[in-house]
Amino acid sequence: MRVNFVVRTALAWVSAFGFGLTGADYRHDLSGPEDSPEAIRTVLNAQQAAWNRGNVPMFLEGYWNSPELTFSGSEGIVRGYDGLLERYQRSYPDKQTMGELEFSGLEIQMLGRDSALVLGYWHLRRIGDVEGVFTLVFRRFPVGWRIIHDHTSMQRAY
Amino acid sequence: MRVNFVVRTALAWVSAFGFGLTGADYRHDLSGPEDSPEAIRTVLNAQQAAWNRGNVPMFLEGYWNSPELTFSGSEGIVRGYDGLLERYQRSYPDKQTMGELEFSGLEIQMLGRDSALVLGYWHLRRIGDVEGVFTLVFRRFPVGWRIIHDHTSMQRAY
Repeated sequence: MRVNFVVRTALAWVSAFGFGLTGADYRHDLSGPEDSPEAIRTVLNAQQAAWNRGNVPMFLEGYWNSPELTFSGSEGIVRGYDGLLERYQRSYPDKQTMGELEFSGLEIQMLGRDSALVLGYWHLRRIGDVEGVFTLVFRRFPVGWRIIHDHTSMQRAY
Repeated sequence: MRVNFVVRTALAWVSAFGFGLTGADYRHDLSGPEDSPEAIRTVLNAQQAAWNRGNVPMFLEGYWNSPELTFSGSEGIVRGYDGLLERYQRSYPDKQTMGELEFSGLEIQMLGRDSALVLGYWHLRRIGDVEGVFTLVFRRFPVGWRIIHDHTSMQRAY
């Protein structure tokens, strides 16, 4: 028992140190189905944290790295991880345009063991705030939960 | 065998007659998983047909009749079947404002045995055309496939 405790403490420490190094939490998913909403929430928190450090590539890590990733919005249906990354880097070239991102009102609904629907609100605090709602579909991969489809729309800008 | 054929023919006839009476195809779903995309496409076709006959309540039959139904868009996240019906009837009081609805570019992706993601484009041909994209999440109920979440956005109006 005591050895077990020591091992677990060591694992917890390594784990915490790992997060410190990467600076975000997109850990591999070893959880059971009952932990899925929490694992998904963790990915979204990591995205928000990455954005607010001005790190677009790390923000994008919450998405499925595939040409089949889809993003719907005011530009229609856009496809592929690489295109999404390029588009984000073009639209948000610096910390000032990126502003401070906040997700709120998250609703996570499981659609099966390996997929989930997430609804929520986003707000970008900057010179010229923008905000709106998003619909995300997550799928569980060996690497963890990732967004396979994102539909984001803007409610109003002021 | 011959009796079986007669029974099946009779069932097909009753079924066809039923459709004739209701004027749309929201039939109960007795299909296996391999037929799911086709069953979902049938619901969407029935919605389009109902809209183009100016029948908003029949259009709404494609949605889950529940206070938990969600609809995301320019007004944020709106909840409930009854509210959605009222909102549609207010926004589209007559055939002229409803125009002619066309869905296109449908992509149906199964998320499990009983849920699916549908992406597509919509276009409303009328005085002042409007169009955009939608993201639908379908769930299979005993009554058939129904939309449990709709995120619709407008791409441009002209």
